[in-house]
Amino acid sequence: MSTLGVDLGGTNARAAVVNEEGKILAAVKIPLDDRRPERVVDIIARAALEATHASSSPITACGVGAAGQIRGDSGVIAVAPNLGWRDVPLGQMLHRALGRPVTLTNDLRAAAWGEFKVGAGRGARDVWTMFVGTGVGSAVIANGALVTGARGVAGEFGHVKVVPGGRRCGCGQHGCLEAYVGGAHLLEQMRELLQSGRPTLLAERVTSNGGVLTPALLEEAAEGGDQAAKEIYDAAVGHLALAVANQITVLNPARLLIGGGVLLHCHGMRQRIKEAIAKYTSETAAEQVTVTDAALGDDAGLIGAALLAS
Amino acid sequence: MSTLGVDLGGTNARAAVVNEEGKILAAVKIPLDDRRPERVVDIIARAALEATHASSSPITACGVGAAGQIRGDSGVIAVAPNLGWRDVPLGQMLHRALGRPVTLTNDLRAAAWGEFKVGAGRGARDVWTMFVGTGVGSAVIANGALVTGARGVAGEFGHVKVVPGGRRCGCGQHGCLEAYVGGAHLLEQMRELLQSGRPTLLAERVTSNGGVLTPALLEEAAEGGDQAAKEIYDAAVGHLALAVANQITVLNPARLLIGGGVLLHCHGMRQRIKEAIAKYTSETAAEQVTVTDAALGDDAGLIGAALLAS
Repeated sequence: MSTLGVDLGGTNARAAVVNEEGKILAAVKIPLDDRRPERVVDIIARAALEATHASSSPITACGVGAAGQIRGDSGVIAVAPNLGWRDVPLGQMLHRALGRPVTLTNDLRAAAWGEFKVGAGRGARDVWTMFVGTGVGSAVIANGALVTGARGVAGEFGHVKVVPGGRRCGCGQHGCLEAYVGGAHLLEQMRELLQSGRPTLLAERVTSNGGVLTPALLEEAAEGGDQAAKEIYDAAVGHLALAVANQITVLNPARLLIGGGVLLHCHGMRQRIKEAIAKYTSETAAEQVTVTDAALGDDAGLIGAALLAS
Repeated sequence: MSTLGVDLGGTNARAAVVNEEGKILAAVKIPLDDRRPERVVDIIARAALEATHASSSPITACGVGAAGQIRGDSGVIAVAPNLGWRDVPLGQMLHRALGRPVTLTNDLRAAAWGEFKVGAGRGARDVWTMFVGTGVGSAVIANGALVTGARGVAGEFGHVKVVPGGRRCGCGQHGCLEAYVGGAHLLEQMRELLQSGRPTLLAERVTSNGGVLTPALLEEAAEGGDQAAKEIYDAAVGHLALAVANQITVLNPARLLIGGGVLLHCHGMRQRIKEAIAKYTSETAAEQVTVTDAALGDDAGLIGAALLAS
């Protein structure tokens, strides 16, 4: 039997028919030209129909991974900033449109579940997945099950406080890990540095890059010995690496899966994370954990959402 | 049906026959005059026999909570400092002696499970239990199940690093939370202060207390405005409160249960923990969590061990 997996981002909806082994039989991607919930449901339903048709495999259920905060097991999207949504009962709406049971989770948990079942987490029972992209997030799998928490917000690793009273975060609080190492905040700190007038190699690197800022340029400047860039980079990576090491002490996972654009492009960060685990994680937990890149790329969320529903 | 719960400390073994509702039908406490594993097994078997006899209820299984590091689900105590044990297959030995299946876990998890089933955690699905006594530890219950981790050491909250390269901890690493706020380390820091010759009200308070140091005296001196005591106390409680707030962000429990001698006697600490949650935990997780004292006292471990086996 197959299930439908849906990956609902801010600009596209992707839908795929996935078999029990996690293989994608057919996939469709449709741009969200209109983000009103009713229209998005229509778009997903159309993608579902196309994918089902293309795979010639009937689907028994649908799993959705959406970028946003999902309220418990209720099928309600509490907040989805990229879609401009608040309190949208997407699960119920999709159930009506598709005539199939719908399981709703956040995109990161969907991706973690895909990696756990058929990707880099396969075979382990306790897996912690940590992403550093525009934002910072994580998903905890313990005893072979997703840990959602009492209100559905477990895993919000980007919002642990690393500098009490520090930089303001998008969540409205101060000093969050994400406010230092999240991609958007790394770029903001780079802009602040460039505007400060303080001498930095970064200016020249950004110019050579056609004026485009990327976290990798910051890493290069820092590793190239630029003091100003190094201060920003070292603070960001230092906070990240220590927080990861501590979380592994508490969770004792068999694997730490890492992903997200920032970690993908900043190779030095992965190394710093590994060093921090060796140095700061409690001994037994450090011995146990294997640090691995997420393996399924953009398909992880699609596959995971489908397998969560199967 | 009833099961036997055993609480194996460093100085006594307690055994109780516990029914399915978590009620203790009979309990026996026997001092460990000899700590060799074979002798301890004999003592537990004798306690079991006495308790079973006193309750006139047959037991179907035995659960043991032991102060130490338990290796996964293997029934082996990897390290039990209070008993001077390393790699003792207690589960297997007790199974032979009692002729009943034996479930072995650490004392803190047993207590957390007791609180979860019939104590202060009752009715919740996601509960985090955190103890600050001589040492600092925690037990995570997520999705209604104990999180043990890949190597059985999940929950080692006392060994998250709060000051990289800081005070040396009993575990051999530096800068652990326990090295600042664990009872043994609070006393050590008080002794260091008294020996430093730095003026402090603590000296007088300790003298009035017959020369006996307690963490509560440190709290009193700090709250009484003594600068030297306040520095130690504020650092310890500050690290504890922030680490707790962050862990709640990641775990999103419905309840935080707190216990242990230090928290029991230092009332200001609980308040500081609550304030830190309000200030530093991510918004939704902070709204959700209720902070409650553990309710079953010394019986929590006995009851929890028995219920884990049932």
